[in-house]
Amino acid sequence: MKDTLLVLFISLFTLSSAFAQPKDKDALYIKDIHESVLSAGSSYENLRVLCKEAGGRLAGSDAYMKAVELTKAQLLTAGSDSVYTQKCKAIGWQRGTDATAFIKGSKQSLSVTTLGNTAGTDGQICGELVRFTSIDAVKELKDNVLEGKIAFFDRPFESSSVNTFSAYGGAVDQRVYGPEVSAIKGAKAAIIRSMTSLYNNIAHTGVSVFSEGQDPSPAAAISLDHADMLSKILDKETVELCLETHAKHLGEVDSYNVIGEIRGTISPDTVLLVGGHLDSWDTGEGAHDDGAGCVQSIEVLEVLTKLNYKPRYTIRCVLFANEESGLAGGKKYAEIAKQKGEFHLAALESDRGGFTPRGFTCDGNSTIFQEKFAALNAYEDVLTSYNLYIKKGGAGADISPLKDQNTLLIGYKPDSQRYFDYHHASNDTFEAVNERELKLGAAAMASLIYLIDQYGL
Amino acid sequence: MKDTLLVLFISLFTLSSAFAQPKDKDALYIKDIHESVLSAGSSYENLRVLCKEAGGRLAGSDAYMKAVELTKAQLLTAGSDSVYTQKCKAIGWQRGTDATAFIKGSKQSLSVTTLGNTAGTDGQICGELVRFTSIDAVKELKDNVLEGKIAFFDRPFESSSVNTFSAYGGAVDQRVYGPEVSAIKGAKAAIIRSMTSLYNNIAHTGVSVFSEGQDPSPAAAISLDHADMLSKILDKETVELCLETHAKHLGEVDSYNVIGEIRGTISPDTVLLVGGHLDSWDTGEGAHDDGAGCVQSIEVLEVLTKLNYKPRYTIRCVLFANEESGLAGGKKYAEIAKQKGEFHLAALESDRGGFTPRGFTCDGNSTIFQEKFAALNAYEDVLTSYNLYIKKGGAGADISPLKDQNTLLIGYKPDSQRYFDYHHASNDTFEAVNERELKLGAAAMASLIYLIDQYGL
Repeated sequence: MKDTLLVLFISLFTLSSAFAQPKDKDALYIKDIHESVLSAGSSYENLRVLCKEAGGRLAGSDAYMKAVELTKAQLLTAGSDSVYTQKCKAIGWQRGTDATAFIKGSKQSLSVTTLGNTAGTDGQICGELVRFTSIDAVKELKDNVLEGKIAFFDRPFESSSVNTFSAYGGAVDQRVYGPEVSAIKGAKAAIIRSMTSLYNNIAHTGVSVFSEGQDPSPAAAISLDHADMLSKILDKETVELCLETHAKHLGEVDSYNVIGEIRGTISPDTVLLVGGHLDSWDTGEGAHDDGAGCVQSIEVLEVLTKLNYKPRYTIRCVLFANEESGLAGGKKYAEIAKQKGEFHLAALESDRGGFTPRGFTCDGNSTIFQEKFAALNAYEDVLTSYNLYIKKGGAGADISPLKDQNTLLIGYKPDSQRYFDYHHASNDTFEAVNERELKLGAAAMASLIYLIDQYGL
Repeated sequence: MKDTLLVLFISLFTLSSAFAQPKDKDALYIKDIHESVLSAGSSYENLRVLCKEAGGRLAGSDAYMKAVELTKAQLLTAGSDSVYTQKCKAIGWQRGTDATAFIKGSKQSLSVTTLGNTAGTDGQICGELVRFTSIDAVKELKDNVLEGKIAFFDRPFESSSVNTFSAYGGAVDQRVYGPEVSAIKGAKAAIIRSMTSLYNNIAHTGVSVFSEGQDPSPAAAISLDHADMLSKILDKETVELCLETHAKHLGEVDSYNVIGEIRGTISPDTVLLVGGHLDSWDTGEGAHDDGAGCVQSIEVLEVLTKLNYKPRYTIRCVLFANEESGLAGGKKYAEIAKQKGEFHLAALESDRGGFTPRGFTCDGNSTIFQEKFAALNAYEDVLTSYNLYIKKGGAGADISPLKDQNTLLIGYKPDSQRYFDYHHASNDTFEAVNERELKLGAAAMASLIYLIDQYGL
C-alpha cells in the first residue's frame, strides 16, 4: 500500500495530458480494488436491501420512491461528498392486477403478463387468435381485417445464437410495435411470445410503444410453454382467446435520478460518470435489470473511498430514473449537465446484469471517438489479466444523451448467457445474482474508472 | 453449408503439415457447430439423465456402474463408430451414513460430511477440539500432544482472490494432509473447514491422503457457518466435540473408463482425445464435477456426426474412472495407449464445471510443447469472436499421464467464479447447471477439436 500511495502522489502531480501506459503499480492498485470489493464490498448486501425493501420499482410508484431513499443512504455510506436527486417527468403507468388469459371454454390459465405502456381491457375481452411471425405480415393486411380479433406474435427468440442480445434484438420488435400495428388493423388486443432464452412457463414483460395520436391498446406477453401450446392448437383449429388486463396510464409523474459523487481534487469540473438505472419492471425485483448496475456503481465510489483514493476528476455515480419506459432520467441528466457546462470525460453504464465480467465496449461521437477510444485501449494490457476486453460497441441507454457532449460512452459487459433467463420476469430476483460475479463486475468498473482518472483519455 | 463441405473436402486432401491459418470458412463451420449444439445438442438432457438416474457415483459403487451403462448408450446415440470400456483397479471406499457431529452437551447438529478415503469412527468419539490454521503448525508439535483430541483445520479459502482455483490450492492441503498429520501427533480425528467460496451451511467433501504405512483416520469437513461458530466458541472456552462417521474401505474394486470414438478417415492411428471423469463424489449428483465434462465430451462426437464431419484423425471421447481418489482411470488409459502404440496428438479435458466458456490452457513435455503450443495459438484468432483465449497452463488430471507420450494437453476453461459454490457438495446437482453455459462449453470444445483435426498441430 505504501508504494501504491506513492505512485498515486506522483501521478497526480506529474502526469500531463500525454497519457502514460498503466504501470506495475496500477496492476497492484487494481488488485487491491478487487480484493477489497470481494472481501468487504457492500454491493451484494445493498442489492438485497434494494430488492427486498423496495422490490420492483416502476417510475412513479411508491416502490421507486423507496428505492430513492435506500440508494441515497447507500451512496452516503459509500463515502460520497454529496448526495442529491434530480427531478424529471416520466410517463406514469400501472399494471394493476396482472393479466389473465385462457382459451374460451378451457379452465387452464395461461401464463401471461401485461406489457408496459399498454391499455387495460376494461373487463374480459375475447376474440379469435390470429398468429403472426412478423410485424410486416400485419402491416401488409387490409384495413380492419383484424376487427374483433386478437393478434398473436410468435416469432421465437433465436436461442441458437451465441449472442443473446442479437437474439433479443431479432425478436423484440414484436413486443415494441406489435400491439400498435395490430390495433391499427382492428385487433382488440395482442399477445406476444416472451423474449427469453430459457424455455419455461414464465412470461417476460417489457415496454410497448404507441405513436402519437394512436391510443394504447391492450397487450400481454405469454410464456414460451404456452405460446407453443397455442401455436400447436392453432395448427388444427381456431382458438377463441379471452384476456383481461388492468393496466392504467397515470399521466405525467415525477421521478428522480439519484446522484452521489466524490469531488475531484484537481479538475473537479470534469466528471467521470458511473451508473445504472434505478427503475425496473414490477413483476420481479429488478435484480439483474438493473439493481445490479446501481449497486455496482455505488460500489465504485465505496471502494475508492475505502482505499483513500483522491480522484483528479469528480467521480459521480448516477442512478437513472425511468430507463424502462422513455429514458426521462437520462435525458434530463444530459440536459442539466449541458446547462451547467459540465464536461463528462467518460460515462460508464452497467445495464446488462450482475454476471461474470467480460469487458467494456465504447461509443462516442465522431469528433472524439477515435482518439479517446485509442487512449482507453492503452489500458487493455493491465485489464487482460482479469480477462477483460475493450472493444467498440454500444454503451448504455441512459448515458446515450451525453454522446453529443463529447463524452466517451462505455458499457460494462458481463457475460450475457443467463441474462435473458431473467430479463423483465418474475424470476429477476436477488437470489438470481451470484455474489462473486456481481462484485467482480463492480471491481472491473472501479478499475477502469481508476485508470481513466489516473491517465485521462 | 455447401461452401463448408467444399472447404472440408479440399482441406482433407491438400493440407500438408505446414499448418494453415484457419479461414473464413472455418469461422462459418464453427458457427454451425455452435448453432447446432445450442439448438439441438443432447448434452443438457444427457446430464439430467446422468445426474438423476445414476446420481453421485464413487468408483466401485452401483451408481458408477449405472453411469457406465447410461453413458455407453449416450455415446452410441451420439454417433460413435464403436463404444467400449477399459477396466482398471480403484481404491474402494464407502461413506455409509454420512458424518454427524455436535458439541458435547449441545443438541445442535453441526453440518459435517465425511471426507473421502478416511476411516470410520466405529461409534461416537469425543475429544477436545484444537484449532489450527496450518499443517506446519501441527507438524511442529511434540509427539502425542494431540492424544485423545480432535484437530480442527480452519484456515479460510481466500474468497478475496479473483482466481478461485488459487484460493482452493491455498487451502486444500488442510483437507488432503490434515487428517494424517494430526493423527501422527495422536489426534483421534480431524475436522476441516470446507473449501468453498460460498458462505453457507453446506459441508464440502473431498479426498484425504494417507502415506503408505499410515492407517487412515477419521475426518470430516464442516460448513463455513459452523466452522466460524466453533472458532468463536474456542476463543472463549474449550470445546469437546463428538463425531461419528461410518466410512469403510473396500479394498481394490473394479472400475471402468467409458470410451466412444469416430474413426479417422486419413490417419486413424492418431487420436484426438476429448474427455472428462465419470466418477464423482456421492453427496451431490456430480453435475459440475464432472458430469458436465462428460456430457460435453459426448456432445463433441454428437455435433461432428450431425454435421456429417469426416475426421482426418480418430476423435475419441474418454470418460475416465476414478479421478476423485487415485486417478486409476487416467493411468490405465495412458498405459494401454502406450502398449498399443497409439499416438495422441492432443488431449482435451473438461473438468472445471459447466460454466460459460473462457478459453483453453495448454501443457506438454519439453520435447513438443513450444512447437505444438505455437501451432495451437494460430487458431486463437478464429476463437476470439467467441471470447475464447488460448494460454499456457494446467490441462487436466486424467489426461496428465499422457504427458510423456508427446501429447499436447489442453484444459477447457470455463468461468470459475461459481465453481467452488458447488464443488464436492450436496448442491452440485443438475439444477446448478445452466443449459446455455453447458452447451457453449461443448461447442467451444468441438470447435477446437475441429480446428486441430483440420490443420494439425
